Amino acid sequence: MDLGIFFGLIGTWLLIIATLLLGGSVGIYIDIPSVVLVFGASITVVFFAIPVGYVKKIVAITKKAFFHKAPSIEKLIDDMVSFAEIARRDGILSLENAVKDIDDPFVVQGIQMAVDGTDPELIEQIMLTDLDNLVERHEVGKFIFDTVGKYAPAMGMIGTLIGLVAMLSDLSDPASIGAGLAVALLTTLYGSLVANAIAGPIADRLSRRSAEEVLYKTVIVKGVMSIQSGDNPRVVEQKLRTFLPPSQRPKEEAA
Amino acid sequence: MDLGIFFGLIGTWLLIIATLLLGGSVGIYIDIPSVVLVFGASITVVFFAIPVGYVKKIVAITKKAFFHKAPSIEKLIDDMVSFAEIARRDGILSLENAVKDIDDPFVVQGIQMAVDGTDPELIEQIMLTDLDNLVERHEVGKFIFDTVGKYAPAMGMIGTLIGLVAMLSDLSDPASIGAGLAVALLTTLYGSLVANAIAGPIADRLSRRSAEEVLYKTVIVKGVMSIQSGDNPRVVEQKLRTFLPPSQRPKEEAA
Amino acid sequence: MDLGIFFGLIGTWLLIIATLLLGGSVGIYIDIPSVVLVFGASITVVFFAIPVGYVKKIVAITKKAFFHKAPSIEKLIDDMVSFAEIARRDGILSLENAVKDIDDPFVVQGIQMAVDGTDPELIEQIMLTDLDNLVERHEVGKFIFDTVGKYAPAMGMIGTLIGLVAMLSDLSDPASIGAGLAVALLTTLYGSLVANAIAGPIADRLSRRSAEEVLYKTVIVKGVMSIQSGDNPRVVEQKLRTFLPPSQRPKEEAA
Amino acid sequence: MDLGIFFGLIGTWLLIIATLLLGGSVGIYIDIPSVVLVFGASITVVFFAIPVGYVKKIVAITKKAFFHKAPSIEKLIDDMVSFAEIARRDGILSLENAVKDIDDPFVVQGIQMAVDGTDPELIEQIMLTDLDNLVERHEVGKFIFDTVGKYAPAMGMIGTLIGLVAMLSDLSDPASIGAGLAVALLTTLYGSLVANAIAGPIADRLSRRSAEEVLYKTVIVKGVMSIQSGDNPRVVEQKLRTFLPPSQRPKEEAA
Amino acid sequence: MDLGIFFGLIGTWLLIIATLLLGGSVGIYIDIPSVVLVFGASITVVFFAIPVGYVKKIVAITKKAFFHKAPSIEKLIDDMVSFAEIARRDGILSLENAVKDIDDPFVVQGIQMAVDGTDPELIEQIMLTDLDNLVERHEVGKFIFDTVGKYAPAMGMIGTLIGLVAMLSDLSDPASIGAGLAVALLTTLYGSLVANAIAGPIADRLSRRSAEEVLYKTVIVKGVMSIQSGDNPRVVEQKLRTFLPPSQRPKEEAA
Repeated sequence: MDLGIFFGLIGTWLLIIATLLLGGSVGIYIDIPSVVLVFGASITVVFFAIPVGYVKKIVAITKKAFFHKAPSIEKLIDDMVSFAEIARRDGILSLENAVKDIDDPFVVQGIQMAVDGTDPELIEQIMLTDLDNLVERHEVGKFIFDTVGKYAPAMGMIGTLIGLVAMLSDLSDPASIGAGLAVALLTTLYGSLVANAIAGPIADRLSRRSAEEVLYKTVIVKGVMSIQSGDNPRVVEQKLRTFLPPSQRPKEEAA
Repeated sequence: MDLGIFFGLIGTWLLIIATLLLGGSVGIYIDIPSVVLVFGASITVVFFAIPVGYVKKIVAITKKAFFHKAPSIEKLIDDMVSFAEIARRDGILSLENAVKDIDDPFVVQGIQMAVDGTDPELIEQIMLTDLDNLVERHEVGKFIFDTVGKYAPAMGMIGTLIGLVAMLSDLSDPASIGAGLAVALLTTLYGSLVANAIAGPIADRLSRRSAEEVLYKTVIVKGVMSIQSGDNPRVVEQKLRTFLPPSQRPKEEAA
Repeated sequence: MDLGIFFGLIGTWLLIIATLLLGGSVGIYIDIPSVVLVFGASITVVFFAIPVGYVKKIVAITKKAFFHKAPSIEKLIDDMVSFAEIARRDGILSLENAVKDIDDPFVVQGIQMAVDGTDPELIEQIMLTDLDNLVERHEVGKFIFDTVGKYAPAMGMIGTLIGLVAMLSDLSDPASIGAGLAVALLTTLYGSLVANAIAGPIADRLSRRSAEEVLYKTVIVKGVMSIQSGDNPRVVEQKLRTFLPPSQRPKEEAA
Repeated sequence: MDLGIFFGLIGTWLLIIATLLLGGSVGIYIDIPSVVLVFGASITVVFFAIPVGYVKKIVAITKKAFFHKAPSIEKLIDDMVSFAEIARRDGILSLENAVKDIDDPFVVQGIQMAVDGTDPELIEQIMLTDLDNLVERHEVGKFIFDTVGKYAPAMGMIGTLIGLVAMLSDLSDPASIGAGLAVALLTTLYGSLVANAIAGPIADRLSRRSAEEVLYKTVIVKGVMSIQSGDNPRVVEQKLRTFLPPSQRPKEEAA
Repeated sequence: MDLGIFFGLIGTWLLIIATLLLGGSVGIYIDIPSVVLVFGASITVVFFAIPVGYVKKIVAITKKAFFHKAPSIEKLIDDMVSFAEIARRDGILSLENAVKDIDDPFVVQGIQMAVDGTDPELIEQIMLTDLDNLVERHEVGKFIFDTVGKYAPAMGMIGTLIGLVAMLSDLSDPASIGAGLAVALLTTLYGSLVANAIAGPIADRLSRRSAEEVLYKTVIVKGVMSIQSGDNPRVVEQKLRTFLPPSQRPKEEAA
């Protein structure tokens, strides 16, 4: 689990709340109708903008953003190289046992197809289609949070305009102008908080998580194709290590 | 039918109207000339910006956004696999009867071409051209609502500037300044409502609906091509299931 | 001719002018130096930003946006199918007479190359290059109006800043502050009108016109290639009909 | 040389300066510290944002934007066709003399490679790589001016905020508020002028110049490849004329 | 090392600080809670938005932006040509010694694979994968600074809104309004400084550094492939020189 997100989330909000407290009593920053408008409409507009089938997945997507642990590509490459060694030594059929300990269904499915003697082109086609659809599904997750991040400030501005019109329509009590303006600004503040301290960072994180997972699965596809074609384990390693940054490549590689 | 959109549309507007009511009498938020300018110009500018042939389709497009029910890809895959079984067992010609119960003209046309012995490359070319043109037509739908979403706030701002200039040109009655400013702001409010609580979410939904339909039709193309090439029903299933998210794939698949 | 654009253009401006009239006398909205700055600089900046060779084409491009009538793709497909029938029946050379009645030089050139026995790959290459360059030329048209739409509001803002600085530098006569502010805002209003009620919608329309013409010419390219390769007229029809929306395809097609 | 840019540049600034003069004395628009901040930081930030090796080229790039004369594509096509005729009549080796009068090194290099009997694929690869790198270099030029256009308004806003804070911190002399505000706004005005009346139009023009040069060089590549492959001069002409807009193609072409 | 960045960074900040000093005492621009909010939240939000594994690399990435010296492509081409000469004269195996003096592991790895008789397609695939992943890693670096540049102004605006609400809620002491407003604006100023005078230029520079390194490595890939295929050193030179701007190509080339 990536503790960074909790540090980031809690730290950001602690800083904001501390600023609120310094501004005076927290009470002046809380206006129930404004809260209901901005937070409520940020949710209802998502149902308006996105088919409900996708919205249902939001809990799973959010959990992934918070709790997903990026698996180690180095470990994956080691596994792939050891599969290549087994395939070379004992024949590709012996991989059937080797993948029993592997959790990742994508690796298992790929190796299983190779063991079954599936046509290499078909293996690649199936695995790449799977990868494309993964990207498509990831984009839906990001799209939901981007939608919230787009409409929350708009709803905040709408709330502020409504408040301003109400205030300007009745200027009979000058003493209340300041308070009216303060309340009107609250929806803009809420909208900005939803967009920049909740939805935006989650959407950004999902996009990076997606890039990470695509890289990981690309290594799997390249590895399976390389093993299937009977490549020497050293060639498999050489091909897959290019996916690591140079600093993580073992020194002996150049030897 | 996707009830989410009604929940989203009605919920969003209920929240906005409740906020208006809390602001005082609804009357202060209604200014007929402002309504006519913003809503009127949001419509006329669409005729200015988009050839009338496209604009005519707006009713059909809006209906689709509201009432379109995404068909089940799982059901489609089951159908394709059963077609593959029939083709294997009884020959591809026997599919002519099998597609009689199918509503989707895209499936019917694809299978029919396979039955007619049309050249596979030609089948694929015709189906992919169809798909490309579907995307193109979907983009037109989204483009119309994006255009509304772009010009409505601009017309709102133009209305506000006109109101401000009128108000500033005659400051002789200080008591009327607040009311003048309130009315001037109304067009900005209207423009923002048109963009963010009507046109924007519909455009977003159309773009997702399009992605959904493209995915659905891609499965059909892949399925028809796979059946046509005489693939084993299990291979057809394997190829098409990659389009489902892992959670919707049957457990026995890995068995 | 597409009357929609006149309805759109005139309707939009009638609404704006009606709003101006309601605001008081039209006179307060007219300030000659502001008009000269915004409209003048919107033109000069185009000469600054775009090589003069392109700018010269603006009259032709604008005429196209206003008066271009999208030709009927259904009619085109009928023509192509009848050419295919002639070619099948009387040989491809007999098409030389058939195209005599056709106005579109792109069709004539394509068929002529087929009649001349030009290498199919060369025909396709020439026609696709022509299409690519058409798109490039269309983009220039859109680019000119996008440039106006980008700089007009900027010039408006510059005018407003100049007016504000002048007004703020001399606050000795409080009575003139409102009028000064009103005049300062006029350039922003003008800039917004140029961008949103003139240049923007024309640019949008040009982009759709371009998409339309590309679709039309793509049908021609596909048709010529299909006829040249000696396709059965029914196959030509089947290939080209995929470019029509399903609702415009004849019912008998599935028969 | 394209005189349009001088008309555009001088015209835009004359309009702006005329507006300044109408606003009162020019003196109120000049504040040396504000000038130093906005113009200075617009330059220093370029060195911060862009490696110095690129920045050095800015003089050459600017000269190109101002003085570059787009060469005539029609003339180029005539040259290419005459080369094709020479190659047909006297053999490709005789082109060595023909290119002696040509100034464009890209044409000379291409024809020379054809004369040398270089492998056609290699000729194309070398010429296309050259073209790709030209585009890359053009993008650097545009990037520099885009960077100025992005940061100049930001520096203007920073200057305005600094001025506002200073003014608001000391409101003891109400008479100076207007003047303070006026000065604070000047940096925003300067930033907007740098972005919209200097850097933006130059960046736009560079992007069009680049498109022009790419088109020109693409015609050269196509021409050289066509000549090299021994195409008939009429075919060379037909291929290359597709790069001209229909209105510039000679009437006799269809004859 | 590129001294331009230090000139740019220091120059920009000197100009800003000079402007602050002219505005009065620097003290009025420093408000500790505002500093903590904007700078603190600009950091915590990065941990929220980006997986911690990437954030850790920020020191290395920043160092690269500041201290990376673009290697000379001309020198690289000379090296490649001399390798091609050695390979021609003494056989490709003799390159094993030649690369001993080369620091760049990418060159060494490429030549080593050629010496080892690795399949050319595999060499190209490995080198291009390496290049793709380099681009991906560079994009992460740019993404981090883009994230800071996106959220810093948002946090600044949130701080200003919080300050405004506090000030408007208590207007009892008119004398303190100016000071309250000044403090509220400080967070917007800080956010703008972080985005435009720190994060933005670094992100821009990283994107150019990346383009530079990709160009450099592309020359290596092309060079290794050319040497491996036994190209004449003159052909190697001709291919690689296309990556240089014409002005840097030696005159004798055309001879």
